[in-house]
Amino acid sequence: MSESITIINGGITAPKGFQAAGLRAGIKPGKTNKDMAMIVSEVPCAAAGVFTRNLVKAAPVQWDAKMLEEYGVAQAVVVNSGIANACTGSDGYENVKKTAEAVAAELAIQPEQVMVMSTGVIGQPLPMEVLLKGVKALRGALSSEEQAAHDAAEAIMTTDTHPKEIALEFQIKGKTARIAGICKGSGMIHPNMGTMLSVITTDVMISKELLKASLKEFVEDTFNMVSVDGDTSTNDTVILMANGLAENDILTTEDGDFEVFRTALKQVMTFLAQNIAADGEGATRLLEATVIHASDKKQAKILAKSIITSNLTKAAVFGTDANWGRILCAMGYSGAEFDPNQVKIQISSEVGTLTLVEGGMATDYDEELATKILSPQKVIVTADVNGGEATATAWGCDLTYDYVKINADYRS
Amino acid sequence: MSESITIINGGITAPKGFQAAGLRAGIKPGKTNKDMAMIVSEVPCAAAGVFTRNLVKAAPVQWDAKMLEEYGVAQAVVVNSGIANACTGSDGYENVKKTAEAVAAELAIQPEQVMVMSTGVIGQPLPMEVLLKGVKALRGALSSEEQAAHDAAEAIMTTDTHPKEIALEFQIKGKTARIAGICKGSGMIHPNMGTMLSVITTDVMISKELLKASLKEFVEDTFNMVSVDGDTSTNDTVILMANGLAENDILTTEDGDFEVFRTALKQVMTFLAQNIAADGEGATRLLEATVIHASDKKQAKILAKSIITSNLTKAAVFGTDANWGRILCAMGYSGAEFDPNQVKIQISSEVGTLTLVEGGMATDYDEELATKILSPQKVIVTADVNGGEATATAWGCDLTYDYVKINADYRS
Repeated sequence: MSESITIINGGITAPKGFQAAGLRAGIKPGKTNKDMAMIVSEVPCAAAGVFTRNLVKAAPVQWDAKMLEEYGVAQAVVVNSGIANACTGSDGYENVKKTAEAVAAELAIQPEQVMVMSTGVIGQPLPMEVLLKGVKALRGALSSEEQAAHDAAEAIMTTDTHPKEIALEFQIKGKTARIAGICKGSGMIHPNMGTMLSVITTDVMISKELLKASLKEFVEDTFNMVSVDGDTSTNDTVILMANGLAENDILTTEDGDFEVFRTALKQVMTFLAQNIAADGEGATRLLEATVIHASDKKQAKILAKSIITSNLTKAAVFGTDANWGRILCAMGYSGAEFDPNQVKIQISSEVGTLTLVEGGMATDYDEELATKILSPQKVIVTADVNGGEATATAWGCDLTYDYVKINADYRS
Repeated sequence: MSESITIINGGITAPKGFQAAGLRAGIKPGKTNKDMAMIVSEVPCAAAGVFTRNLVKAAPVQWDAKMLEEYGVAQAVVVNSGIANACTGSDGYENVKKTAEAVAAELAIQPEQVMVMSTGVIGQPLPMEVLLKGVKALRGALSSEEQAAHDAAEAIMTTDTHPKEIALEFQIKGKTARIAGICKGSGMIHPNMGTMLSVITTDVMISKELLKASLKEFVEDTFNMVSVDGDTSTNDTVILMANGLAENDILTTEDGDFEVFRTALKQVMTFLAQNIAADGEGATRLLEATVIHASDKKQAKILAKSIITSNLTKAAVFGTDANWGRILCAMGYSGAEFDPNQVKIQISSEVGTLTLVEGGMATDYDEELATKILSPQKVIVTADVNGGEATATAWGCDLTYDYVKINADYRS
């Protein structure tokens, strides 16, 4: 089925009826960095969101969650990447409301249909005058051109080294439909509090219920399986908007066409999640860990995440050091249940595949070959726990001098 | 009560009837590093142990846990700091048994009373010939002199930058008694797998039950509240031996004298735990986090540990950056329950104390003063969550370039 899904050029505006803009309003320090983005649909969208599990939730997260819970409809997203508007009390929430109202007034829509996202400095008030000017400028810059989509992808970045965007095309109920996504990640930097923000647009017509269920399910398998430094920000937000302009018969049941949509959505989210991991702060390599034959999905996820979260594994990957002991050790303290004596561990990359551990003990592998396999930009660890049928994959990155530098020396 | 407890010179042999030795047997690479230690009591000791929770348990951990469970008596501890003897299968366990038998033969005691500890390379077989020669040499070097105790403390080190030892004197039931401890920590290094190992000796006469309960309780508050890099090794072991040679009336109930012993034991374990954190791999600073007014002890511990475990907090401390947002954020994603709007955060050190957050929002604090407070070797974060009466303290260290260097570049 996935053969019928093709990657196309263009970003967040590839699906019909979406416009975007990204520009510098002047919220971030510096003179040239873009710091505000807007994504707008011609018509109201069925919408779903998933938000940070951090108990400390930024004001915009509170707003978006409330609006989606009450209405499940959105037509615009506005983002600033300079100030997080977290730990800002009731004034902070008031400023989100004012932002939504300003966007709504510009677009002649309801404030309740405006999703607000922020990332950046925590604890500081938003410079509302600058921000509201930015809203006006964004309104003027809105366009469905590829460049506008790219500007939006760029404007939501903080310490990301490059924008992250993807667009797919596929057939639903005989109609051509599209889905596209952008995101930013990178880690958390002082005084900025970096964040995972993502907007996904599609012109598929689909019920709110299916939209919400699909997003939730795949967030678990994609964004929630990524770790750059183990820290969960106050602002993490994913918003998925479906405007129905592909004019397909609406998806309301779990049929084959819904499966096509699901496959495309998962592909978008997996791409974005992998790219967040690969572009982690200071990262030089993407580390993918897949656990197979676990007793259940939960155990598989715990194991995969423990491998990519371990500072020791991460530092070993940076050093291209096939330290299977650290991998097995990280699995051992993860809290998941498995028999260490049944574990098989392989590493692989474009260079080749090598079995490091068999039956819980080291094989007589070639250290030089192991180092070669660990050298490309993407390296994969596969841990077979021989205890069942469940599988999970997690994505992380190596731990480097630059991670420490970025996070310790920010002000210097 | 604790006024009657005084720190004295000497190490693990300060309590009556204990001898120690530390020397180079030749297990570690290099030519001069000590790599084996022995600690022996003249008479059998009531003994208790606490071991790694990692599902992957090294062979010596399996041996010690089994022997203490079955007998609760020990008379000697033998340590090698070159090879972990983890992931070595049944041969590994057989080698532990052989080691215990060799020690027992040298000392004319039972193998079941010999505790074996290892740390170092994972997955490699022990060089038994070298190790058994080491056992003989240790037997010859045993002494109750301070230098012998120091040699033992040094011989258990891996990447520790200095030995960690303490001895205390106090009165129990009208008799002068002593307790002493050594430990190693530092982190986990490839191909060595560093480990927390600790031996605590006392001449107090005490029942096995009280000994076991006290050790278990305080491990929770001390060693288990330390994190260098969040990784739990396969070999972590703490052994507490009480030989009764202070000749006090045996402690069997929870009376005032037992409280004195408990206070002394906790002081030893707290000292060792703090020193493990302060000497973490690459660390330049000890970070102590105390959470007060939590709803219960469990929540307090989760919060305190989350603060000292966060890579972002750790990197901020390295950069002497008063990044309160990261502290609050780490509390928020810890899973503990609290009201972020009630949180007060202070930092302190020998330089002074500063309130960064009040009611969940930043105070108008002096950034320069904050940097000064964060500069000494020990910095304290106090988070008041205003939700109850429980308190907990955790110890960590900063995340530095050297941590990455030690763990990535080991072979170069």
